[in-house]
Parts: sequence; structure tokens; C-alpha cells
Amino acid sequence: MEYRTTSKIIERLEEMGVPYRFGPDIHNAELRMGLPSAEVHKAAKERAVAEGARPELVERMADGFTGVVATVEGALPGPTIAIRVDIDSNDLIESVEDDHMPYREGFASVHHGAMHGCGHDGHAAIGLGIVEMLNIYKDQLKGKVIVIFQAAEEGGRGAESVAKSGILADTDYFLSSHMGIRANRTGLFAAGTFGHLVSTKFDGHFKGVSAHAGNSPELGHNALAAAAAAVTNLLAIARTSKGTSRINIGGMQAGPGRNVIPDYAVINAETRGVTGEINDYMFDSAMHVCAGAAQMYKCEFTHTVEGKTTDAPCDEALVKLAAQVASEMDAFDEVCEMMDFGAGEDVTFLMREVQAQGGQATLMLIGSDLKAPHHNRKFDFDEAVIPVAVELYTKLVFAIGEQAKG
Amino acid sequence: MEYRTTSKIIERLEEMGVPYRFGPDIHNAELRMGLPSAEVHKAAKERAVAEGARPELVERMADGFTGVVATVEGALPGPTIAIRVDIDSNDLIESVEDDHMPYREGFASVHHGAMHGCGHDGHAAIGLGIVEMLNIYKDQLKGKVIVIFQAAEEGGRGAESVAKSGILADTDYFLSSHMGIRANRTGLFAAGTFGHLVSTKFDGHFKGVSAHAGNSPELGHNALAAAAAAVTNLLAIARTSKGTSRINIGGMQAGPGRNVIPDYAVINAETRGVTGEINDYMFDSAMHVCAGAAQMYKCEFTHTVEGKTTDAPCDEALVKLAAQVASEMDAFDEVCEMMDFGAGEDVTFLMREVQAQGGQATLMLIGSDLKAPHHNRKFDFDEAVIPVAVELYTKLVFAIGEQAKG
Amino acid sequence: MEYRTTSKIIERLEEMGVPYRFGPDIHNAELRMGLPSAEVHKAAKERAVAEGARPELVERMADGFTGVVATVEGALPGPTIAIRVDIDSNDLIESVEDDHMPYREGFASVHHGAMHGCGHDGHAAIGLGIVEMLNIYKDQLKGKVIVIFQAAEEGGRGAESVAKSGILADTDYFLSSHMGIRANRTGLFAAGTFGHLVSTKFDGHFKGVSAHAGNSPELGHNALAAAAAAVTNLLAIARTSKGTSRINIGGMQAGPGRNVIPDYAVINAETRGVTGEINDYMFDSAMHVCAGAAQMYKCEFTHTVEGKTTDAPCDEALVKLAAQVASEMDAFDEVCEMMDFGAGEDVTFLMREVQAQGGQATLMLIGSDLKAPHHNRKFDFDEAVIPVAVELYTKLVFAIGEQAKG
Amino acid sequence: MEYRTTSKIIERLEEMGVPYRFGPDIHNAELRMGLPSAEVHKAAKERAVAEGARPELVERMADGFTGVVATVEGALPGPTIAIRVDIDSNDLIESVEDDHMPYREGFASVHHGAMHGCGHDGHAAIGLGIVEMLNIYKDQLKGKVIVIFQAAEEGGRGAESVAKSGILADTDYFLSSHMGIRANRTGLFAAGTFGHLVSTKFDGHFKGVSAHAGNSPELGHNALAAAAAAVTNLLAIARTSKGTSRINIGGMQAGPGRNVIPDYAVINAETRGVTGEINDYMFDSAMHVCAGAAQMYKCEFTHTVEGKTTDAPCDEALVKLAAQVASEMDAFDEVCEMMDFGAGEDVTFLMREVQAQGGQATLMLIGSDLKAPHHNRKFDFDEAVIPVAVELYTKLVFAIGEQAKG
Repeated sequence: MEYRTTSKIIERLEEMGVPYRFGPDIHNAELRMGLPSAEVHKAAKERAVAEGARPELVERMADGFTGVVATVEGALPGPTIAIRVDIDSNDLIESVEDDHMPYREGFASVHHGAMHGCGHDGHAAIGLGIVEMLNIYKDQLKGKVIVIFQAAEEGGRGAESVAKSGILADTDYFLSSHMGIRANRTGLFAAGTFGHLVSTKFDGHFKGVSAHAGNSPELGHNALAAAAAAVTNLLAIARTSKGTSRINIGGMQAGPGRNVIPDYAVINAETRGVTGEINDYMFDSAMHVCAGAAQMYKCEFTHTVEGKTTDAPCDEALVKLAAQVASEMDAFDEVCEMMDFGAGEDVTFLMREVQAQGGQATLMLIGSDLKAPHHNRKFDFDEAVIPVAVELYTKLVFAIGEQAKG
Repeated sequence: MEYRTTSKIIERLEEMGVPYRFGPDIHNAELRMGLPSAEVHKAAKERAVAEGARPELVERMADGFTGVVATVEGALPGPTIAIRVDIDSNDLIESVEDDHMPYREGFASVHHGAMHGCGHDGHAAIGLGIVEMLNIYKDQLKGKVIVIFQAAEEGGRGAESVAKSGILADTDYFLSSHMGIRANRTGLFAAGTFGHLVSTKFDGHFKGVSAHAGNSPELGHNALAAAAAAVTNLLAIARTSKGTSRINIGGMQAGPGRNVIPDYAVINAETRGVTGEINDYMFDSAMHVCAGAAQMYKCEFTHTVEGKTTDAPCDEALVKLAAQVASEMDAFDEVCEMMDFGAGEDVTFLMREVQAQGGQATLMLIGSDLKAPHHNRKFDFDEAVIPVAVELYTKLVFAIGEQAKG
Repeated sequence: MEYRTTSKIIERLEEMGVPYRFGPDIHNAELRMGLPSAEVHKAAKERAVAEGARPELVERMADGFTGVVATVEGALPGPTIAIRVDIDSNDLIESVEDDHMPYREGFASVHHGAMHGCGHDGHAAIGLGIVEMLNIYKDQLKGKVIVIFQAAEEGGRGAESVAKSGILADTDYFLSSHMGIRANRTGLFAAGTFGHLVSTKFDGHFKGVSAHAGNSPELGHNALAAAAAAVTNLLAIARTSKGTSRINIGGMQAGPGRNVIPDYAVINAETRGVTGEINDYMFDSAMHVCAGAAQMYKCEFTHTVEGKTTDAPCDEALVKLAAQVASEMDAFDEVCEMMDFGAGEDVTFLMREVQAQGGQATLMLIGSDLKAPHHNRKFDFDEAVIPVAVELYTKLVFAIGEQAKG
Repeated sequence: MEYRTTSKIIERLEEMGVPYRFGPDIHNAELRMGLPSAEVHKAAKERAVAEGARPELVERMADGFTGVVATVEGALPGPTIAIRVDIDSNDLIESVEDDHMPYREGFASVHHGAMHGCGHDGHAAIGLGIVEMLNIYKDQLKGKVIVIFQAAEEGGRGAESVAKSGILADTDYFLSSHMGIRANRTGLFAAGTFGHLVSTKFDGHFKGVSAHAGNSPELGHNALAAAAAAVTNLLAIARTSKGTSRINIGGMQAGPGRNVIPDYAVINAETRGVTGEINDYMFDSAMHVCAGAAQMYKCEFTHTVEGKTTDAPCDEALVKLAAQVASEMDAFDEVCEMMDFGAGEDVTFLMREVQAQGGQATLMLIGSDLKAPHHNRKFDFDEAVIPVAVELYTKLVFAIGEQAKG
């Protein structure tokens, strides 16, 4: 619900005279996930307007169509390059347990860090810096650059609708990065990453038929019984030998109440895997379990996907080019080609979309000193990294243009 | 939460000059069940005062100590007789399914009818009428009569704390009745009843340990997994061959949420049986299941009883006397000794208390035409029955005095 | 596996010159249930031949086609009457628990008593007696009488294949009876019965896919996990308010072994109900549970019915006629029209078949003193009852003929 | 049940004049696991005698006391060194699925390979060769060497009773090795190993109370229901983030039969982990689940451990010495210090015992070409490796003696 953030970015783009698209134009409406309720949306819109967002913009973004895409058209012919920065500034912590977690399995959402790392619109500032620099030098720019300010809400809910909106059509190169993560000091850079963890967050809805529990229990189709059977057997899904996987059912609400055969039950669940294949295995198995559990009690089962991340390989040629560009910058004293990302990132949906069209993509790590210990609520990244990131992206865009020419 | 009702009864007793006890004096504090939260109580007290209840009375009844006991001391020596009328006026319907229930198993709460049948303080009016009559004739009254205006909230939550408060000490005879039920026309009377259905309403609380579901699931003790196992296996309790039994888990709430191993889960459950032995079997089995389920997942299980009804036999000698008294009244054209009550009634706790001391007890049915079809929200009993009931109780008290003398 | 018994009956029928049918002619091959294995059959056949059964008869009965149907064609026109006597002589007791069972729910198999009561081919003797008498008087006999010597193995496995074999085509009246049960003294007779308990005995087969439990558990489809889920949730089927029901899973075999994801599991189960509707509800619910459990673990579920009993009403006109015939016999000092059978009897399949064609049917009780306490292994009925039964059937056949004429 | 093998080894030791111990002297009777039944034992003994084993030896080994320990006492003072060779020659394959297993998780029992690799008493031949060589050179031998010919039956059932028998008292060095595994070519040698997989094989016994399922189900304590709940919830144990774990229930037998509440159920299960800590976590969790499941149905739960492997570190100093000795032998062209064992081996119980006393231990890998593809039933190791192994052990024993002197 980044109404105000999007509105501010748009104002800045207008000041620069850079064309932009936003609202339904940059989303696939059917793929938006985990939308808040109408009430929450309305309150967010009103708050955004009260805080200075332009009402006509907010209205057009309503119902989850946040984010904006800027286009800098170079004067010279060349490739189409897409850069994605995420602009979410969620300030809730993922879980109170995080503080004492060893993180050795690395399943923690990258957005946990992002929440705090991206405070003060840090990533958005990088995006605007890139647009500003490219706009200044557009006479020498080969090809076209689109900068996607993505509303990537926690839980992997933003990227897929952008990826499938059509804005990536004909994109030849896709660039993205994250601050910190395992590049945990200023001066360290990774030109590509692997180990993008994959998860599917879903709610399972069991719908039954209520009946008086004393008078005619046989008339009921017990949704809570179905959900309880599902929970136990979801946890019992055979773990794959192909790598670490997880399943959790973190919540259940069922009712209506004591003396009625329950006609509804909702479970809040997620599957995780170290690869898309493993997560798919877990999720598909989960769907079998839930469908079977519903059948046992003559209930109906439906699910809603509340969030999703996937994995994507970084393309070697692009990674090598980014590594070379970075190694020529004074700001980096250590450049490695590939680093373990060890977390989920929904930018992988955008990467896969570009790669499916024959383009190249990478997700880089730009190292940053931490102002406070990781996972601490005061965590923030080193703001000196912002101009470094702008410089890296600008130089990389020009390097791609050069290379593409040759 | 009958603050205002109790307050009004007390005012009327004061007008008559009849001594009374109320508040903690007539309750066993440890046996109050299913108490609303402090907030709900506070709001109820404030509403009662706003509607005219006396603040000092309301304060003394606070925290569930509602109801009042009036004492009419006869001038002549004789037995101690207790009469109980219930004064609750809950106007919620038990379940929307009730309308199309065949009721052939008879498990419906008597309070379902009571809610509507007792509207307008009908039962309370009978109680005050009895006090008034006995007070007028107390010079001829043998022994002592206490009239218990019981706050018998739906779900069997009121009677046990009254039964164990000490107010029934030395009671020789216990009289109670209900309007309608299966005595479904004015003029019909049953001097005793059987088939008092028995139930235990309980919440089961599973307490575990939360953990990050991705990073360290092994640190969690999964309360939802325990509760899910409990639900399935509670439903699987072997049914007894000794008569109809029921178990239902009508609701569950577990959390905190998707990516955390759940550390709490609450189930809303009830057991039922056509006898106390059968209900005890179901409840005891349920406790085994829940404890075992908790152990499976290293969780702790506790339960809170939210309501309870039991059964009690009506004493033959007292039933015969009541039948004789009724058969001599013009108001009744059909008198039977025993009728199937086919529902739960918490007055059975009071009956059992008196019987345990060697006294006699009965629960009668006073027939009433129905002004609207049964189970309809407009259901109400025939108000002409009120003076009939007062007459019956008064004559029966005197008849007991006569008999006891001989 | 009544090879020898059938063979002996056939020999006797041949001596009397009465035509008979047997083998596949009197069975519907597809409806035979709970057949022993080929080995057991072979051994039984060899034993029967060794004990004097005629080999060519035994061969024709092979594979469960036991029993024989005799036909006595009357000289005069009239109705077709079928009489069924069961000839099984199983001498195993149903369960070691039976001795201390209160039997108040009445679910015990009638065949428990039958096993001992029918020792020494008692029922078969009655059947042969009837054939002999009718054969002697066939010149005066109106219509046709077929006497079905049914191999009704324990567990309700014999009647349905006979009922659907076609031999009951055009049957107008169907007569059957049982010794004892609740007619527990010589001289007592019931012309009809109700309360024929209903059960379905089935094996559930879960077929999965095995895999190495350490190396690639994800390749397995766990049949034991499916069966375990089925067991728990079968026991959890909501009990109907319409009357007593039961479900039991009395055995499971799953494997192949410790370090392999199990690819098979078999459960041995049964449902029971006091009416066919209730048993159908339980069985249908069980099929839902098993199918759902299989789906949860990507397994296949099939079931085999190992035995079945149903209920059937006795036709009032026929009952009244039987009561009248019995009341005119000196052998009976007490005749009632209807008695609670309180057990399962597979003759109900035959009754239903005749009734479906518009015919009338009854299942009578012929009282018998017990030579030893009921349920005792020495239990046997009073052999003096055999000629009484023969007389009853013969007179009833003639009475039907008379009535049909008028 | 290596009666004949042990007998043959003893005969050979007697020929050499080397003292030995066997039978109960080299076992801790209470720690024998997974013993075959008395019948199977008896048959094995008879077969062994028939095939030439000495009856008095066989008798003394009866009931699982197989294996033998030879002692070569050096003429010079020095350390006590224990060498273990396993002599089992089981020729069953672990599982038919093995052929197409990727083995990437490495959970396959080392004994799978051993069965075939050790065919023809290969390992035993190495042990006898070592004894022979040391016996020849005992005048120059410093200290004492015991060679343990261990009957290490598949499933980790042999080592623990030997480890706790007392024969390792005062042992300073412990040497053991395995052919092949990941040292899959002749000429390759690993002086130490890690990655010894850990498992516990157990049977869970649920004991309940039977009852007639129709007449009095409430009198039963349903052991199958308990076991079914256990199965589902065992599979649902939260997987630890500390490394790969497994749990499998590969078989169940419950009964007695269809119409009886089952009074027994046995599950055949195993837990696995890549470390002892992980396996302990899984096994302990499993015990909680089983105990809880039993409690749910008022059953008793007991378990029998049918096999167990653990892990043990190889001591660095001993590993370096072995690597040095091997690197000086022509037979090895590649020597590495540590290699991933990637399988379970019960010799780790012996290693841990020696290390607990302050001694050093290692488990080495002696590479071998494979005569047939791995996992093939024709698999066998290169017999040329036998004299190489004998040479290695002999030289290592002397090197230890040298080192210990310094």
C-alpha cells in the first residue's frame, strides 16, 4: 500500500520530465495476491492523501495497483534494459523469534532485512538516482532503460503481477540488486547470486455444512474435522531427498461455535524449498492432502495464494560484465561473481520473465556496513552506499550498451 | 449477568419485608463457570445501573455473583423446603439450525425454550408470587421455605456454584419446575421428570513454544499440531453401548500466524450423554485424548469447564404428592407422574445436593399453550399459567408440611 | 464350504425322487463374497470327498457354489412358495468376548447362536422334513414349493448371490425361520420379526508406491500413512441421531518393512446400524473417508465386501396367516405376531428379492428350550422342535394354498 | 547368526596357536538387539553343525553370542591396539528400490555394499591375515593387538554389545576400515572418515484391551487407533534445521480381527539423521508421539530397539599416521586424510568406547575396483585388495608401536 511513496516518486519523475506508467498499466490484475481488505485499502488511501499524496494518483493506484515504471529513451539505437528497485517500506518485523535465530538454514525472508534496510525509501532513492543520471546522459545512451519502482510487499506479493503485465516485453537485460544480506560490509560486491529461496504462502479454506451437534450431527459436513486431518497430514508430507524443504501451518480459525458442527475452517500455511522444484513438490503434495481431507468429510476445499517467491539463475555473461564494471570502481574492494543469496526475493519472477524471452538477468548484492546488528529493529544500511549503487547501475547500463554494439 | 433483574427482585422482596441473601453468600466462588471477561462484566454493570439497578447491589453481585435467595420462616415447626426459579432472560437463539431439527434425540438445551419462554421475567414472577403468598400465610406455614432466584445462564453455568454454597444445608424438600417443554399445552402437568440430558462444555487450551518455521522448526512445540491431533481423535472416541452420546468440537483458534510454529490453540468442545455416566465416560475419554495429543507435541494442555449439566432422579414420594396436589386443582385437566424431560437443566445440581443430604427433590413440568410455534423467535408461554404455578407451589408447600407433621 | 452337507442333502433328495438344482445354477457368481482362498477350497473339497461326498457333486459346487434347491411341484394350480433353511455348521465362536457381553445393543451375529444351535445339521433336517412331507402330499398340493438349502456362511456371505441367481423368479410367498434367539423356550412362536441388524464387513486396500525411506522418500506414495489417516477418521465419522451405529477397524496389515515407504496397507473393517439406512450412512461415510485418505497420499483405494446383512419388513398378511396356523397347533402355547430379532440374518436379501417382485415374506422365530446356557459352547436347541417346525411349514404351505385359491 | 563363519575362524586361530575369546565373554548380553526367534536360531545352529561347524563352539555362541576376539601379545612393551573386522555375510539386498536410487543423500546402509562386497568372508580373510602376520612377527611387536572378528549383522545390531563387553578396556588405539564405499577404485585410500550416518530402528508395541466392537465398544482400549494416530503424527515430527533427518514407519500389524476392538498393534519404524544429535532428536520426538498416542486411547506403549548406528570422529593424530603409512605403500597411488563415509557403520560404537577411555580411533576406506556396477547383485570387490589391507594394518600397528615408544 505504497500510495504516498509512489506518489512522491511520480512527482519527482515529473520534475525531471521523465515519462512514466503506473496503475493498472503495469500490473496483471489477476495475479495480484494477498490484497488487504477494502476497508484497509480505503484507510491507507485516505492517510496517503492526508499526508500529501495526490488524490488522482492515489485513486488510479487503488486496489493494489501501486508502483511506477519510468522510461529513459536513449538517443542512440541499442538494447532494452530493465532495472528494478523495490520501494516497500514495511516496518513490521517478520517474527519476534528472529532475534535468536541462527539463520543457518537461511529461510528468513529477505524482506525482513529490507523492511529496515529500505527505511527512508533507500532503494527508491537509488532508483531515482539512476533515472536522474541516465536522463542527464541520454544523448549518449544506447537503447532504452525502464526503471521499475516495484511495490514488493512482504511475502512475495508484488512481483508476479508486474512480471506478467507486459511491461517487460522485448527486454534484453534485467538488472536488480539488494543491499547487504550476506554482502555484509561496505566495499563488497557480488555480481550474481544463487540460493534464492522459494516459498508459497497460502490460506486453505474448508467449507462444510453446519448442523446441530446434539440433534443431528449426521447432517453436518465437519469443516474443522477436515482441517484438523489436513493439518496433521500436511505436516506428515514425505520430505524430499533433493534438498531442504519446509511446511508450516501457523494458524487456524474454525467455527462457528461449541454446539454446532463447524461449517468453516481456515488454515494459514506456507511451503518452502531451496529450489522451485522442491517447493513445487511440497505445495503440490499439500494440495493433495487438503483435497483428500476435504473429501473425507464431504467438504469443499479452496485455497488462496497469499504470497509466492521463486528462484531464477543469474546469466553468466551478464554476471561477468557486472563483475568487471564493479571491479573498476574504487568503491568496491572485493568483487565476487556469485554469492549465496540465502533468502527469498520476488524479483526472480521478473528475471524469469525476461529470461523466458531470451534476455539475460541478474540479482546482485551491494555490500553495506550495518549501523546496528542485523535483525535489530535499529538496523539500517550505510547511506554512503546509495551513490555507489547509482554509479554501478549507470556504468553497467553503458557497458551493456557498448557490449551490445560490438 | 442478571444485575438488573436481581436488583428488581430484591427491591420487591424489601417491599414485602422478606429477608434475603445474595452475592457471594449464595455462591461457591470456585465453581462459577464460563464467566464473561472483566470488560463485559463492567459494561453490564454500568448498563444495569443506567437502567435503574441499585449501584450498591450491583457492586456486590459483581463477577458473577448474581441471583438472590428469599426466606419465608413459617410460624410453626416443620421441614425446610427449597424452591428454585431461574431468572435468566437470554434472548439469543441457541443455533440457527434449530428450526429444522427433529429433536427426536432431545439434546436441545432446555434454555433454548427458556430464553423465549422466560422472557419478561416470567419465571421470576412465579417466584415472587410464591414468596408473596407464603409470606401472607406464614402464620400457618410449617417449617421454612427458601426461594432461590437462580441466575442460570445458558450452558449450565449457574447452578453448581449455588448448590455448593451452603444455602441448601438441612433442606428436606426441593421443588422446581419448567414451563412447556414436552408438557406442551395449558392444563397438562407432570409431577416429575426423567431424561435430564447431561453435558459438559469445555475449552481445551494447548500451549506450546513458538519458533521460526523456516529457520528452526525443531525449536517449536506445535500447539496447533497437538490440537489437530486432538480434534480428530476426540471425534474417534469409541461410543458407548449404554446409550446415546455426543462429542463436538465446534471451534478452534490457533496461531499466531503463517510463518511461526504455533504456540497456542484453543478448541471449543462439548460432550453429551443421556445419563451422567455416559457423559462422564465421554468427558474422561476426551481428557485422555487431549492430554495424549499435548504429549505428542511436547505441549501443555489445560481445560476450562464452560458449562455443565447433570441428571438427577425425582423422588417417588414427592412426585406422588405433587401429582395429588395438582390433580385436585381445576387448572390441570391431565396429570401424569413422570414425563421425559429430554433436555438439559442445571437445576439437577441442586436436586443432587439435597438428595445427598437425605432430602427429596423433583423437577416438574407445568404445561403451557404456545403463543407461537415452538422454536420460533416469537415463542412465549401462556401468561395465564403464572398464577396457576404460584397456586401449585403454595399448595404443595402446605401439603408437604401436613405430610411431614403426620 | 458345505460340500459334504450339500452332497448328503442331494443324496437324500435323490432317494425321495425330488428334482433339485445346485452349483452355479443357484448362484449369481459375481455376488459371492468373502470366498476362501483356492488352497482352502481345495483342502475342503478333498476332505469332503474323503468323508464320503460324491466327487462329481463336489466338483460342480467348487468355488463357493454350495447349497441346493429342491422343487416339489403340486398337482393342483396355485402360488409359488419358497422356503429357505440354512445349512451352515460353522463351529467357531464369533469372539471370545461374547461370554461376558450384555447383548443389550443386540449386535451379536445371529450366527453365533446358529453355529451351535444348527450343529448336527438341524436346520437341514427341517428342510428335508418339509420336502418329504410335501412330496408325500403333492397330489393335494396347490402350486409349487421350492426349498432352498442355503449355505449361509457366517458373516452374511451366502444369501445375496442366491437372491440374485434367478431362482426366486415368480415367487409369491417366502417363508423362513430361526430357532431360539429371543424365542427362548419351546412352545413360543413369533410369526414375524423386526430389528434385523444390518452390517457391512469390508476390507479396505490402500495401494501406494514404495521407495527407499532414506534415499528418496519423496518417490513413495505412503499406503500406511493413508491407511492410518483413514483409521482415525473412520472412527471419527459423525454418528447419526437416527439410531445406534457402529464402525470398527479390527485389523491392519501394512508393509513391506522398516526401511521402505510402504506400498500397501489393508484394513479389516465393518459398519453396523439398527436399520439399513443407518448402516448405509456409515458405510457411505466410510468410503468418503477412505477415498480422501488415499488421495492425501496419492494412493489408490479399493474395497472388497466380505459380508453383508440387511433388514427386511415382514409382510403383515403373511405374518397373520402364520400366527393363525401356529395358534392352531398344540405344540405352541404362546404365539405372538412380531418379535424383535435383534441380530443380523442374511435371509433378508431373499425376502427383499421376493418383495421387490410383489411377493410376501416373513422370518419367523420358533422357540426352543436351551440345553445349556446361551453363548455356551455346549449350547444346542431342543431336537423335539424339528418335527414341530416341519409341521408348521407344511401346514402353512397348505394354508397359503387355500387362501390363494379363495 | 554367523555360527559357521565363527567356527571356521576359531579353527584357523587354533591352527596358528593364537589365543582367543568368544561367546558370552565378548558380549554384553543386555545390549544384543534384534535377535531372531529361538526357532530361527535353532535352525541356524543345526545348519552350521551340518555344514561342519564344531557343535561345542556353536552351542557356546547360541543366542547371538557370535564373533571371536584373537589376541597377539607382542614380546616388547607397548600400547594396546584393537582392530575390528566384520564377518557378516548377509546376502539379502536392503531394498529392491536401491537400483535406481541416486544415493545423493547417502542414507544407504553401508551393509548394503558390505553384503556383496564382503561375500566369501573377504573381511574375515583380512582379519586372519593380520593375525597371521602379527603372530609371525610377534617377537618384534610392541604391545598387544586384539583382532575383533565382529558379527555385525545388518541393521547395526552387533557392535554395541561387543563395545560394552569389557574387551576394549585399556585399548589405546582402535583401527577399522571398509572396502570401497566412496573409495571406489583400487589404489585410493582414506585414512579417516566423517559422515557416519546415524539411525535407530525400533518396533513400537501398542497394547490395548479388546472388546466386542458391536456390543460394548466402550470397554475396549483401541490399540490400532493409537497406532494409527502415532503413524500420522510420527510422520509430522518437525524436521530439524540442523541437517537432514528421516523417519519411516515401514510396516504395521494390528488385530485380532474385524469385529473386535484391536488390542494390539505393532509398528516397524526407524529414524535417521546425519549426526547423532539429529537422530536423537528424531527418536526422542518419536517416543513422545508414541507415548502420547497410547495415552489418547488408554493403551500401553513399549518399544524394542532392533538396530542402532551412531557416529564417531576419527582422531587426527591417528589419521595422519595412517595416511603416512599408506603413502609409503606402492599399492596406493592416492591417499587422502578424510573422506565422507556417507553411510551408517556400527563400528562407531567401538570407536566411541575407546575414545571415551582416552584412546584414539579411526575408520579408514580402502579403495577397490568394482567387478560389477555398484548396487548390482554381482557386486564384489577386487580380491587383490586383501593382501594390501593386511599389509596396511600390519605396518600401521608397527608404526603405532614406534610412535608410542618415542
